[in-house]
Amino acid sequence: MTIPDSQKNEYLYERIAAELEQQIQSGLLLRADKMPSIRNICTDYKVSMSTALQAYYRLESKGLIRPVSKSGYYVSYVKKFPALPSQSSPSYLMGKEDNSSLVSKVYDGISSDHMMLSLGCPSAELLPVAKLNKSTVQAIHHFRESGTGYEHIQGNTKLRRQIAKRSYVWGGRLEEDDVLTTAGCSSAMTHCLMALTKHGDSIVVESPVYFGILQLAKSFGLNVIELPSDPRTGIDLDALKAILKKGNIKLCLLISNFSNPMGGTMPVEHKKETVRLMEFYNIPLLENDMYGDLYFGTQRPVNCKAFDQSGLVLLCSSVSKTLAPGYRVGWLTPGRFAEEIRRIKFATSISSNALSQEAVAGFLEKDRYENHLRKLRTTLQANSLHYMDAIMKYFPEGTKVSQPPGGFMLWVELAPKVNTALLYEQAIKKKISIAPGKMFTLQDQYNHCMRLSYGHVWNKEVEQAIKTLGKLAG
Amino acid sequence: MTIPDSQKNEYLYERIAAELEQQIQSGLLLRADKMPSIRNICTDYKVSMSTALQAYYRLESKGLIRPVSKSGYYVSYVKKFPALPSQSSPSYLMGKEDNSSLVSKVYDGISSDHMMLSLGCPSAELLPVAKLNKSTVQAIHHFRESGTGYEHIQGNTKLRRQIAKRSYVWGGRLEEDDVLTTAGCSSAMTHCLMALTKHGDSIVVESPVYFGILQLAKSFGLNVIELPSDPRTGIDLDALKAILKKGNIKLCLLISNFSNPMGGTMPVEHKKETVRLMEFYNIPLLENDMYGDLYFGTQRPVNCKAFDQSGLVLLCSSVSKTLAPGYRVGWLTPGRFAEEIRRIKFATSISSNALSQEAVAGFLEKDRYENHLRKLRTTLQANSLHYMDAIMKYFPEGTKVSQPPGGFMLWVELAPKVNTALLYEQAIKKKISIAPGKMFTLQDQYNHCMRLSYGHVWNKEVEQAIKTLGKLAG
Repeated sequence: MTIPDSQKNEYLYERIAAELEQQIQSGLLLRADKMPSIRNICTDYKVSMSTALQAYYRLESKGLIRPVSKSGYYVSYVKKFPALPSQSSPSYLMGKEDNSSLVSKVYDGISSDHMMLSLGCPSAELLPVAKLNKSTVQAIHHFRESGTGYEHIQGNTKLRRQIAKRSYVWGGRLEEDDVLTTAGCSSAMTHCLMALTKHGDSIVVESPVYFGILQLAKSFGLNVIELPSDPRTGIDLDALKAILKKGNIKLCLLISNFSNPMGGTMPVEHKKETVRLMEFYNIPLLENDMYGDLYFGTQRPVNCKAFDQSGLVLLCSSVSKTLAPGYRVGWLTPGRFAEEIRRIKFATSISSNALSQEAVAGFLEKDRYENHLRKLRTTLQANSLHYMDAIMKYFPEGTKVSQPPGGFMLWVELAPKVNTALLYEQAIKKKISIAPGKMFTLQDQYNHCMRLSYGHVWNKEVEQAIKTLGKLAG
Repeated sequence: MTIPDSQKNEYLYERIAAELEQQIQSGLLLRADKMPSIRNICTDYKVSMSTALQAYYRLESKGLIRPVSKSGYYVSYVKKFPALPSQSSPSYLMGKEDNSSLVSKVYDGISSDHMMLSLGCPSAELLPVAKLNKSTVQAIHHFRESGTGYEHIQGNTKLRRQIAKRSYVWGGRLEEDDVLTTAGCSSAMTHCLMALTKHGDSIVVESPVYFGILQLAKSFGLNVIELPSDPRTGIDLDALKAILKKGNIKLCLLISNFSNPMGGTMPVEHKKETVRLMEFYNIPLLENDMYGDLYFGTQRPVNCKAFDQSGLVLLCSSVSKTLAPGYRVGWLTPGRFAEEIRRIKFATSISSNALSQEAVAGFLEKDRYENHLRKLRTTLQANSLHYMDAIMKYFPEGTKVSQPPGGFMLWVELAPKVNTALLYEQAIKKKISIAPGKMFTLQDQYNHCMRLSYGHVWNKEVEQAIKTLGKLAG
């Protein structure tokens, strides 16, 4: 691979780049593959480190490779992506469809011998179970009363400190007293809705929207107004403005980054503008940013809370998508509603699980969490490309797929004639579980859509499952 | 201690009983002391086992001693008990007093260097922390995914099986599918209130009533109707009948055994009658039986659920008062509302903490739980007598105290001029925390009452704290 002397000129790096580009274009280096290290390029091509770096900068500027912090460069080139799903267009009228039996069916059907493409969290193989166990055992040995006693109402201090510290990544500058721990993110959202809404109130959400939010709203007797949303940029701001102007909205509930299920991430300007709107109309924004740490880009996206000056943004999150769903460790920043929400947490739960909070706090305190996230992000991005590939290959032409730059979910739009509730029935017979689109709305829509999770270890079985789904969807 | 030959007649057992009685009366054997074993009586008095047993039966029939299953006999004689508090007489009108700041103050004031006579659970020294830790470590090693994955919505199967099994003790005959696990009893009550009530509905409770119930009701915008209650027999059935007859009651919420705070235990006939009333008016009964396992008598009291034929009784409980408050492991039997409550559990929490459920299930599976409960009950009963003694000795004459035959709480009624909210302020300066009576009502009453917990290791410091309280209350 030595470059002939005659070609050793000032544009040497271009030749290296060209050679690597050909390997990528020809499929020798596959998307999501790790590129050779800079050191190896130096050795292989007998060039200096700065030449090797220049070659990689060139490839990066062409969108062929991308750097992953502390891990090196990865192939990011994809020959052809499927088309994006269209922006959703729900009715502004409150939907009355009942999807609870479908949700129950899909979640009662959870079984370890099924291919769970419907699952709402990464599979255990991608989570640092052994290291977290160590943290838990440590908490048993060193935490007061081994975590058998009630935790303070506000939650574990060490955990709140870690959450506050991590908020600096998205410009949050939280302090530990701004944070209240909860039993997962659902619990956080429940506290907020209890504090801020009453039976019959109207709230605004994206559409499609995570079915748990619909069920929660139903439990509180709330009217859910689903707004048009874009697979890339999330909720439609004009629609939001229009509905707020009409009045009578009590609360706005958004997943701002890599939203579930469509994957939209609100651009920074949208986030700013949304916060400004909330302030103008004096309406609380319940912001769920549970997926934000799972970004594929070079840095974590900010959230709306970063622009909150008035305490109207209630940010909630958890470690359920990154560490341990079963631990039920989440939190929220109750902002100006702190006293009321604290009272509600006490009344409804007294305290959260003391042992799990301490274990997670211990895990976050060390670098282990960052190291784990880095690995998890790389795996998930590679998975997303594998899935995209497989869908292109096995699904009927015209299938549209969202391409979220983070998280672990795809929103798949099939031909209008396909009914994914029926597809679910056919797939489950073949031991494949999917989440039909109907689960994510209260209106009669998304019947030809589905959510697929790629939070699995990619292997032949997963590929086979996608192949089977593609055939069923044909 | 040999009985002279001349006295060895058929009434020998009477002489032994008389001698022991004198030791008790004179204070040589103190209340709650363990009596000599039957074997020791045989040796000491050189009599047969049947004679020794007859002597003890005689003492037991006089109420001087009591058998404790698998542990022997204990002195139960108390020279003089304080008078019982009077039956409560709240107004039938909805109270509007706001006690939340008082509750927050008392619970924010929780500190490890205070004498926490306000605490709502037994102290860690009385709980089997080390053995439970073993169970948790075992769960980490053997449970699927070490408990990091989501638990089934219905909850841990092994735990539900154990709860069902234990229901046979109170005649429950539950099956594992009748049980839904929750994050503690508060969470169970929250699910039920969410499923069965709406803002503005009226519910019936005892008075005084556990402040958490008042806060929960407030969070849901419910009208709380406090009914007269007796320190021995709990809620006044005539009052309950009258209010149900008037109509417009949506739900009845009772702690049927060793109620918090007054300690009343509904007699079996009251329990039967209450269930009958609920059926007649078709109103759900939310029954909290969290203290029932902490009985001082010879067997566990039954609960209302035992008489439920119609699925209207929603029983809820937890291990927070007997094993590990911080683990947040509770459950409920949703009866005929199973589907709705399951949906609400899913929407508000997805699942409960998987690891703690498995750990508690493992603990319950073995005999460890029964052995622990036996010890805990003995300690708590001894404590209750120590407290009673100390209150008699150090509190002003005329102080009235409840004498619940189980649990770990006393309801203390002082002279009407005493304000226990002020007493709290004075006591906390001396690092003693109490629960003022005002916390247990939404009306202007119980200002001269307080709840004291005896779930501590009895020692000089506790006695000193009671002495100090008595002086402050003088």
